[in-house]
Amino acid sequence: MKENGLLLILSGPSGVGKGTVVDELIRRNENITVSVSMTTRAPRAGEVEGESYYFVTREDFLSRMAKGELLEHSNHFENYYGTPKAPLSKAMSSGKDVILEIDVNGAFAVKEKMPDSVLIMIAPPSLSDLRDRLKGRNTETAEVIEERIGRAKFELGKAHRYDYVVINDDIEEATIAVETIIAAERLKTSRRRALICNLLEDTKND
Amino acid sequence: MKENGLLLILSGPSGVGKGTVVDELIRRNENITVSVSMTTRAPRAGEVEGESYYFVTREDFLSRMAKGELLEHSNHFENYYGTPKAPLSKAMSSGKDVILEIDVNGAFAVKEKMPDSVLIMIAPPSLSDLRDRLKGRNTETAEVIEERIGRAKFELGKAHRYDYVVINDDIEEATIAVETIIAAERLKTSRRRALICNLLEDTKND
Repeated sequence: MKENGLLLILSGPSGVGKGTVVDELIRRNENITVSVSMTTRAPRAGEVEGESYYFVTREDFLSRMAKGELLEHSNHFENYYGTPKAPLSKAMSSGKDVILEIDVNGAFAVKEKMPDSVLIMIAPPSLSDLRDRLKGRNTETAEVIEERIGRAKFELGKAHRYDYVVINDDIEEATIAVETIIAAERLKTSRRRALICNLLEDTKND
Repeated sequence: MKENGLLLILSGPSGVGKGTVVDELIRRNENITVSVSMTTRAPRAGEVEGESYYFVTREDFLSRMAKGELLEHSNHFENYYGTPKAPLSKAMSSGKDVILEIDVNGAFAVKEKMPDSVLIMIAPPSLSDLRDRLKGRNTETAEVIEERIGRAKFELGKAHRYDYVVINDDIEEATIAVETIIAAERLKTSRRRALICNLLEDTKND
């Protein structure tokens, strides 16, 4: 009576530390795995097929898209990116929880096709805190940073359409918050139909 | 920006150990309090006004009912029992989580009036396990036990209308499960409107 794993969709503004939280979740939980995207862009040095991305040709990508094999897709700078459904469904069927790190538009597209998925917005304690973090990186110009803050406002403005919001003020606390959400979601009656059916079986035969 | 406390509605068949789980929740969590019912029946030895029950006259009860001061009520053996709304709302406004232990019909009546409340069904590992527990008490006849099992089937048959189901196989595990539900519910965007609004405030003024 193994229940399916959960699909956890994580979004949040650039600079919020989503990646670090995801790494920490993976490190602490054997049962969690990450969805790998598919892309038509060329692999960069050090990138590993099936780990960094599934690298495919443009023709292959478009054919998979047409066959409905992608949960969502987007297009940046002439390259396609998408979420292949098969590996994700396979992991979930085996009971693994799958994390999909994706932007708000991708998140809503996936939620529509997988309504049981759990939408989690990772948010900074405040926009000024996010600005400080971006400045601290010393990799972006002031202009780029303000562009990112503008984008962050757009994304955080969609938070109310997410199931949960987790403030990333401290990596460990944010990781525990996501773990708590996973544990509680597993207790939802909507995910425990089989258990509830079994409960109602009266095995009295004495 | 203190958020309201949660209203947790706990139901479950007689003999499942709800009371023990509630006691353990109270003992471990300062922030949790229990809703006290109002009744027209006479106090029994040792019962304390405002702790065991709010004891009122029939006239008083009916007048409160008419004024809409009760979230739900029921009638057993000529006595009225009900859940007064005011003390519960007051505790929640102060940030306390309130537990209301009540049967399935009462639970649905309260959920209708307080749609933000969280419905948790405490269930036994199986009906035969519940039967063993009831037999172990040595206080009920075989007939009464089978009556209770019949009632348990009815209650567990409503589990799908609850938000969560917690199996009480072990008191500590069941208590932790309820604590996990509380922690996750607090992270729901629907309960964090103020936080999300504040997040969007850009305090840049340098």
